Amino acid sequence: MTGGYLKGRLRREDIITAAIAVYREAGYHGSSLREVAKRAGITHAGLIYYFPSKEALLAAVLERRDAEDADREQLNVAAPGLDMLRHLIGLAEYNVAHPGIVDLYVRLAAEAVSPGHPAHEYFVRHYRVAREEVLASFQALADTGELRPDVDPQVAALTFIALEDGLQAQWLTTPDEVDLVGSLRTYLQSLLTVPLS
Amino acid sequence: MTGGYLKGRLRREDIITAAIAVYREAGYHGSSLREVAKRAGITHAGLIYYFPSKEALLAAVLERRDAEDADREQLNVAAPGLDMLRHLIGLAEYNVAHPGIVDLYVRLAAEAVSPGHPAHEYFVRHYRVAREEVLASFQALADTGELRPDVDPQVAALTFIALEDGLQAQWLTTPDEVDLVGSLRTYLQSLLTVPLS
Repeated sequence: MTGGYLKGRLRREDIITAAIAVYREAGYHGSSLREVAKRAGITHAGLIYYFPSKEALLAAVLERRDAEDADREQLNVAAPGLDMLRHLIGLAEYNVAHPGIVDLYVRLAAEAVSPGHPAHEYFVRHYRVAREEVLASFQALADTGELRPDVDPQVAALTFIALEDGLQAQWLTTPDEVDLVGSLRTYLQSLLTVPLS
Repeated sequence: MTGGYLKGRLRREDIITAAIAVYREAGYHGSSLREVAKRAGITHAGLIYYFPSKEALLAAVLERRDAEDADREQLNVAAPGLDMLRHLIGLAEYNVAHPGIVDLYVRLAAEAVSPGHPAHEYFVRHYRVAREEVLASFQALADTGELRPDVDPQVAALTFIALEDGLQAQWLTTPDEVDLVGSLRTYLQSLLTVPLS
């Protein structure tokens, strides 16, 4: 690893940190690359070198969030199966207490459905990784007889991710009418032959 | 009903029709009120009188879509219960064949999570109506023993709507990896004690 490469990595991380602060204060439409550059102590041209668009920068914010979520909720060390599903419920509880990042995720996910969008590749990867992670748990539960025999692990995994995404948008719009964590828990429990908690 | 009122209603409908055509050709970001005004044969100021923003106009497009969906899929005449659920699967099949309107729905739903957004009220209403419609069906199924006894109709209704929304975004992003209709059908079947079809 060269010194220049390391410096670039650090600068990139500083920019993402500044972007998170600006987004928190100004929201999706209020955030601008100019404000992020100012906060990070870098020129606008310098910022563009690392992130050619606001959307590319916001995808990097979500990428860092995924890494932080994995650390905090121990997603990389949890055993596939009930343990992992409980950690995913823990993540949903964290999200409900942090609506700002959920708001960013929901907005960028909708923007990024088109292949040409700067965050498109992030979401293609994110969905795949999320589905695989959950699939491994449902497969482990099927092996031990803890998954209902009529449940297909593939369908259950895809459905869990889609349900979480759909609940988030509906919860942000009508927070008093949507029990995000309770709905996810009830859905997971309905697939199992043993108590989730 | 006065002649002026009727004329206003017709003019409003013409504008929505023009907006649908422009959206179909230019997409979410390419569509402009100016282009819609031109297509509808009305001045820009005249258009603003009816729809103060692009987002308000797009909410009206979704409102007309809801009415058209209800007519085509006979949602207002289907009996609550299995019959209604089958019609909702029919609607999902129609949606898969018409990704353009799904794209508009997904994008505007994400934009409209904030209370200040011109389409916010539309989505609050849309979610409520959709949940009530599905709830009536699950309640009817519970009464006849066709719903699994451990399924709560309220949770099942909320989950169905959220699942459909989440599947739509994931399907638009990775169409080859998401079986939208199959996943919905499997989810519904898992709640029932009788065959869905």
